[in-house]
Amino acid sequence: MTTVGILGGGQLARMLALSGAPLGLRFLVMDNVADACAGQFAPMVVGDYRDEATLSEFASRVDVATFDFENVPAESAQWLSERVPVFPNPGALATAQDRLAEKTLFRELGIPVPPFAPIDTREQLDAALADIGTPCILKTRRLGYDGKGQFRIKSPADADAAWEALGAQAPKVGLILEGFVHFQRELSVVAVRGRDGEFRAWPLTENWHVDGVLSASLAPARVDTALGEIAYDYARRLAEAMDYVGVFALELFCRDGELLANELAPRVHNSGHWTIEGSETSQFQNHLRAVLGLPLGDTRMVGLACMLNWIGEMPDALPMLREPGGHWHDYGKLPRAGRKVGHATLRADDANALAMSLERVGLALGREAQVAPVVEALR
Amino acid sequence: MTTVGILGGGQLARMLALSGAPLGLRFLVMDNVADACAGQFAPMVVGDYRDEATLSEFASRVDVATFDFENVPAESAQWLSERVPVFPNPGALATAQDRLAEKTLFRELGIPVPPFAPIDTREQLDAALADIGTPCILKTRRLGYDGKGQFRIKSPADADAAWEALGAQAPKVGLILEGFVHFQRELSVVAVRGRDGEFRAWPLTENWHVDGVLSASLAPARVDTALGEIAYDYARRLAEAMDYVGVFALELFCRDGELLANELAPRVHNSGHWTIEGSETSQFQNHLRAVLGLPLGDTRMVGLACMLNWIGEMPDALPMLREPGGHWHDYGKLPRAGRKVGHATLRADDANALAMSLERVGLALGREAQVAPVVEALR
Ligand SMILES: Nc1ncnc2c1ncn2[C@@H]1O[C@H](COP(=O)(O)OP(=O)(O)OP(=O)(O)O)[C@@H](O)[C@H]1O
Ligand SMILES: Nc1ncnc2c1ncn2[C@@H]1O[C@H](COP(=O)(O)OP(=O)(O)OP(=O)(O)O)[C@@H](O)[C@H]1O
Repeated sequence: MTTVGILGGGQLARMLALSGAPLGLRFLVMDNVADACAGQFAPMVVGDYRDEATLSEFASRVDVATFDFENVPAESAQWLSERVPVFPNPGALATAQDRLAEKTLFRELGIPVPPFAPIDTREQLDAALADIGTPCILKTRRLGYDGKGQFRIKSPADADAAWEALGAQAPKVGLILEGFVHFQRELSVVAVRGRDGEFRAWPLTENWHVDGVLSASLAPARVDTALGEIAYDYARRLAEAMDYVGVFALELFCRDGELLANELAPRVHNSGHWTIEGSETSQFQNHLRAVLGLPLGDTRMVGLACMLNWIGEMPDALPMLREPGGHWHDYGKLPRAGRKVGHATLRADDANALAMSLERVGLALGREAQVAPVVEALR
Repeated sequence: MTTVGILGGGQLARMLALSGAPLGLRFLVMDNVADACAGQFAPMVVGDYRDEATLSEFASRVDVATFDFENVPAESAQWLSERVPVFPNPGALATAQDRLAEKTLFRELGIPVPPFAPIDTREQLDAALADIGTPCILKTRRLGYDGKGQFRIKSPADADAAWEALGAQAPKVGLILEGFVHFQRELSVVAVRGRDGEFRAWPLTENWHVDGVLSASLAPARVDTALGEIAYDYARRLAEAMDYVGVFALELFCRDGELLANELAPRVHNSGHWTIEGSETSQFQNHLRAVLGLPLGDTRMVGLACMLNWIGEMPDALPMLREPGGHWHDYGKLPRAGRKVGHATLRADDANALAMSLERVGLALGREAQVAPVVEALR
């Protein structure tokens, strides 16, 4: 009987547990809040990620540990990895937690990135602004998610406002200035690497964000095979360089047929949720297979899939449940503004059927705007 | 927040909970043993199904109740249904619990059945033997499962041995004598009926038993469309006559192109486990959708699927995990002779690929005999 420990008890941990149950696994989740939604289907220990007593109890009850949440303090991951096997390794986690380390690695590996510069002081911001030019984005290096901790600088005159918004965080989490990419599309490669180094990736996913938060994903993305191969190659190089084990997502901007790396998420990823119904093996089960040293499952997909995120509160389920390829995912969370409370996946055998399904659902839910870019992409 | 109560905490309850989680449901399982495997993923109350205090606690904590186990005492189901909505209704459960009531209903609805007669005494057995002839099978009317409570009578000389084996149970659970059917194939229709009467069925499944226990299933079954339509029609008539809500399986013998009904299982069924990966909507999720009055999901399948049952103990998982369409289901049970501890499903796009996959797995596990009839059916 193997028990998998998961640091973080949100929807990713919940979906990991649900997809790992058929492997005969047990789970233990650690979270700092008692009502974390994974706790509805797995036992949980509650406590701060820095609290040694909680971590120690967690470590004593699991055979292997992984993450639902990438911002677990690097020291906690390190401490844990001295007691139980932890995948991905804490070094990979630390790199992916820091936009500067991550982008530096991308560059070292020959993976194109937008221009960037580390910012610790107001003077550095001014110098980097002169260098990189506008538009650009000032971001916190660490602890950002869903577009939080970002300030868009349209012209040099915005420098004051940007520093006003984020300058105070510079000493604690660090800042980075990035050139703004006028991309046509956002893509992600969701990939998995096994303990033995085997590498697999799902078909590329195309993503749409609203206010910095993922709103919709479409797989397969509209990219030609050559570009897809380049994306896979980037993902593979990164995974090997980091000796990464498990699932991760590499977020890419596609501009004029060129790919630029944005960031690497060291965990199962929102843009891979469609794999639950859309692929032979879901990202969740493959993450567990990787972490446990089991053979990786087939990442092939059948037909097309579109994932719609539900933010803040769940919409009416009926229109989606009435669609032949409609699959509902309610994370069992209380509604709260900006919170990811669920998603739905629509599967179809061809682009036209998927577009029609999306239009019906969009209309029924009054969410025409959410489905519109995907429908447009499919036509 | 809806809580679904499940009477019985075995693998069916476990798979119901896992497939219902995405609908945002919570579960409460009731079982008479504390280590029932559904308890690994759902809260549980432990107690005898006849114990009013336990039933009462169960009832107070759920919004709707259903079954993983058809042999819940009819009075308990009735008692419960006076407190919370129970699906399927206790009357349907009672009919399906009793082979005599069930076969009588089949006959009333014009569904062909083997000859049968109720047996309460040794004299009735002799009379029925003269009437039905041999070979035939003496079975308990109630509480039989996996071929238990059955005695095969090859010639009239076996009457003593049959009575010796089962006669003592006649006063308690009743007996029935059934003509033996020289069938070419065993089939099942797994179907679902909603609260609003909507009816759907998955493609017919072909089943192979070993020692009265399901060993392998193949979907779709090798039957022509006309026979499939007849089977659906029988299933629909039964569901309507019983005002059945939820998933059920109708087990059929196919003899010389004719279908004879064997029995109705008033719950999700082992021969429908392949629907988890082989169909757009699994029998588990559709059972919950039906019970909750939600729209039923699409029962279409893609390609072919074969399910292999693991009895007694789990075999090595690796050969199955290495197959592209291989899916593993370990129920988290301790090994025990005759116990259903898990299953695996192999999915493939065509018959030849499925046969080759089965042969590889059969060879690697030393289970050539288990896969052989399915491979033969596919060739
Ligand atoms: N350099 C850039 N040029 C153009 N757009 C950008 C840039 N960086 C970020 N964005 C936009 O903002 C979104 C969120 O940015 P980013 O992925 O860096 O933040 P995050 O907080 O880590 O988000 P997530 O949690 O969704 O990964 C991106 O998906 C993209 O739409
Ligand atoms: N009348 C019959 N003629 C021929 N074979 C029969 C007959 N009745 C039962 N069998 C064989 O025995 C198997 C088990 O019988 P049956 O389905 O009645 O029992 P059960 O204990 O309810 O099984 P399960 O739990 O698998 O449904 C059948 O699948 C079939 O192979």
